[in-house]
Amino acid sequence: MPSKEMYALGSQASVIRDLFAYGQEQAAVVGRENVFDFSIGNPTVPAPACVKEAIEEIVATRQSVDVHGYTAAAGDLAVRRGLADYMNQTYDAGVSADNFYMTCGAAASLTVTLKALVESPEDEVIVVAPFFPEYTVFIHNAGAKEVVLPPDTEHFQISLEAMEQAITPHTRAIIVNSPNNPAGTVYSADTYTKLAALLTKKSADIGHSIYLISDEPYREIIYDGLPILYVPKFYANTIICYSYSKSLSLPGERIGYILVPDCAADAKAVYTAVCGAGRAMGFVCAPHLFQDVVLKCMGKLSDMNIYDENRKLLYNGLKEMGYECVYPSGAFYLFVKSPEPDANAFSEKAKKLNLLIVPADSFGCPGYVRISYCVDPDMIRRSFAAFKTLIESYA
Amino acid sequence: MPSKEMYALGSQASVIRDLFAYGQEQAAVVGRENVFDFSIGNPTVPAPACVKEAIEEIVATRQSVDVHGYTAAAGDLAVRRGLADYMNQTYDAGVSADNFYMTCGAAASLTVTLKALVESPEDEVIVVAPFFPEYTVFIHNAGAKEVVLPPDTEHFQISLEAMEQAITPHTRAIIVNSPNNPAGTVYSADTYTKLAALLTKKSADIGHSIYLISDEPYREIIYDGLPILYVPKFYANTIICYSYSKSLSLPGERIGYILVPDCAADAKAVYTAVCGAGRAMGFVCAPHLFQDVVLKCMGKLSDMNIYDENRKLLYNGLKEMGYECVYPSGAFYLFVKSPEPDANAFSEKAKKLNLLIVPADSFGCPGYVRISYCVDPDMIRRSFAAFKTLIESYA
Repeated sequence: MPSKEMYALGSQASVIRDLFAYGQEQAAVVGRENVFDFSIGNPTVPAPACVKEAIEEIVATRQSVDVHGYTAAAGDLAVRRGLADYMNQTYDAGVSADNFYMTCGAAASLTVTLKALVESPEDEVIVVAPFFPEYTVFIHNAGAKEVVLPPDTEHFQISLEAMEQAITPHTRAIIVNSPNNPAGTVYSADTYTKLAALLTKKSADIGHSIYLISDEPYREIIYDGLPILYVPKFYANTIICYSYSKSLSLPGERIGYILVPDCAADAKAVYTAVCGAGRAMGFVCAPHLFQDVVLKCMGKLSDMNIYDENRKLLYNGLKEMGYECVYPSGAFYLFVKSPEPDANAFSEKAKKLNLLIVPADSFGCPGYVRISYCVDPDMIRRSFAAFKTLIESYA
Repeated sequence: MPSKEMYALGSQASVIRDLFAYGQEQAAVVGRENVFDFSIGNPTVPAPACVKEAIEEIVATRQSVDVHGYTAAAGDLAVRRGLADYMNQTYDAGVSADNFYMTCGAAASLTVTLKALVESPEDEVIVVAPFFPEYTVFIHNAGAKEVVLPPDTEHFQISLEAMEQAITPHTRAIIVNSPNNPAGTVYSADTYTKLAALLTKKSADIGHSIYLISDEPYREIIYDGLPILYVPKFYANTIICYSYSKSLSLPGERIGYILVPDCAADAKAVYTAVCGAGRAMGFVCAPHLFQDVVLKCMGKLSDMNIYDENRKLLYNGLKEMGYECVYPSGAFYLFVKSPEPDANAFSEKAKKLNLLIVPADSFGCPGYVRISYCVDPDMIRRSFAAFKTLIESYA
């Protein structure tokens, strides 16, 4: 028999994937137009035109061996230089090529960073509810313990009192994710300022640096003209994990990066450990063609207006019906309070109306559901009758 | 400070990379044409034309979201079906789509397979010297102990007596690699037959199945009309790790697969654990565009004749000068016995003549050097004078 732990991970049912599969089945029964699948977070907006153009130009003009050969383990130097230039121009980041390690996407950015940082099985990594459930898997893979910070359901920022209590001498790192999956909220400058003060104080108390891992796959999906904050400016000891899955709609190509800025504690050593962790898990290098594609598309984005339109349509529509919705400032998720305490029961009732929405228990936030709006806007409109029937059943 | 273990892995000098870097520096001093770099195993033969055609056709005819979206974690179903058909037609493998898990290349195939199989820190994984040194890193990442089988320097097959002694109740798996890096040799049907008999007997003795992990990135680089052997036909309990890095010259694109045939012990459970291990390490899915590219290029190969020509040129040339060479039957490496017992000293002397060859100590085979011939044939010809000077210094 294989590893029990890996077998369990491989066989674990995912609420999201199960809902998605159910939706596919139901579509065959009641017609695709009568199933309202808000379960998954798969970008529906096409990649910007520069992606196709970049691919075509690269394969037309370069030698095969140059296009598809190995790059350095950390990524092609020209790509990392371009990335540093872009980050310096955009965020005044003060970084260079040597601060970047190109990865096979957001998940790899996290597993590599965590493995680089975790030293002992007593190490603790704090996650802030609501949070992406795969964090748990990645923290365990790195050999650390997960500590869950309860959600701040008033503002969906970070409860600093709870954070202060959660930090122990074993705290190694904290993962934050803004714009947030699943809450669709964005941390404010005030939140980062206060968090930084707390972490600086607690690092001194416990006698070692606490790393902030800023997981930013939704960085540019932010609305109402809110500024994008460069987190190391608030807390120096930050490592950024990024992915182009959402900003360039390239989730299947597995391309992203880890940024270890010089201001992070033991930055050079951490960067070296990142290289070691990537090596240990067999990443070798990030996919070469798409390293060059993101270089050519630096600063370009998929059309975020489409998500913004969906956001307004869904938020206003549901609010009018009487749903209690968390105001969505980023990402492409609407977080809605369940009209009954058990969000699973609520989701089951929704499912009977072919409305597929995800109870947030697995995100560490019971009593809420996640409604993903990276969907066809027509589906949102068609779904309103069912959403209305659903809320009226609680009247 | 980060993880000491990952820091060490990230900062470890690699003999091969150091030689390669030295060659780049020397080229600036003495001219590129006077440096004979046989250090690395980076394919120099272009990808077959179908790769470029496939990329162009896919991006021209499909919607961006379909080209670049997530696939199932195990890989796109159509790709796995195509792969199963190909393996059934070519090797009468009797496999289906459900036996394949698409990976980010050979290294990922190995790290995922090892993590899926290893249950306890007492588990042992046997490697057969000479072997690819990253196996050690991957085995440790999975949490197992490495056991090194000494090289059979007479035939470069597998010493069955040594294998019998190496197997203990803790033996979980054995990694074999044929065609072999670094020896350039190919295991015979006789070797597999005898190995299978031994493993079957020992599995019964120790009361659990011993998995054979067949690492096959060089599968199709095989000469003199030797047959490609489908290893599960010899030993049912085999898991195949494959990569398109060499066969399609796509090392930078990170695309390969794991095949868990139904005949392997607990095949369904192992496959599930493979899915779990991929998930734990953050692989998510293999790069989507290149999954579709390998489907369109199924059965196609880079021009292997170029390697074959290099092989004959180098082998005959060095043999004539008096070098003791292992006859190369596969891959693109010539394995040469050092004229003095210390291959490091020999390599250092070669380096003074700008001949960059890799001492095989790190491959578990002291006294030998690896000469990689995935190089420009003109460089081989130009290098002969230096090789002659070198061997004559031992006269």
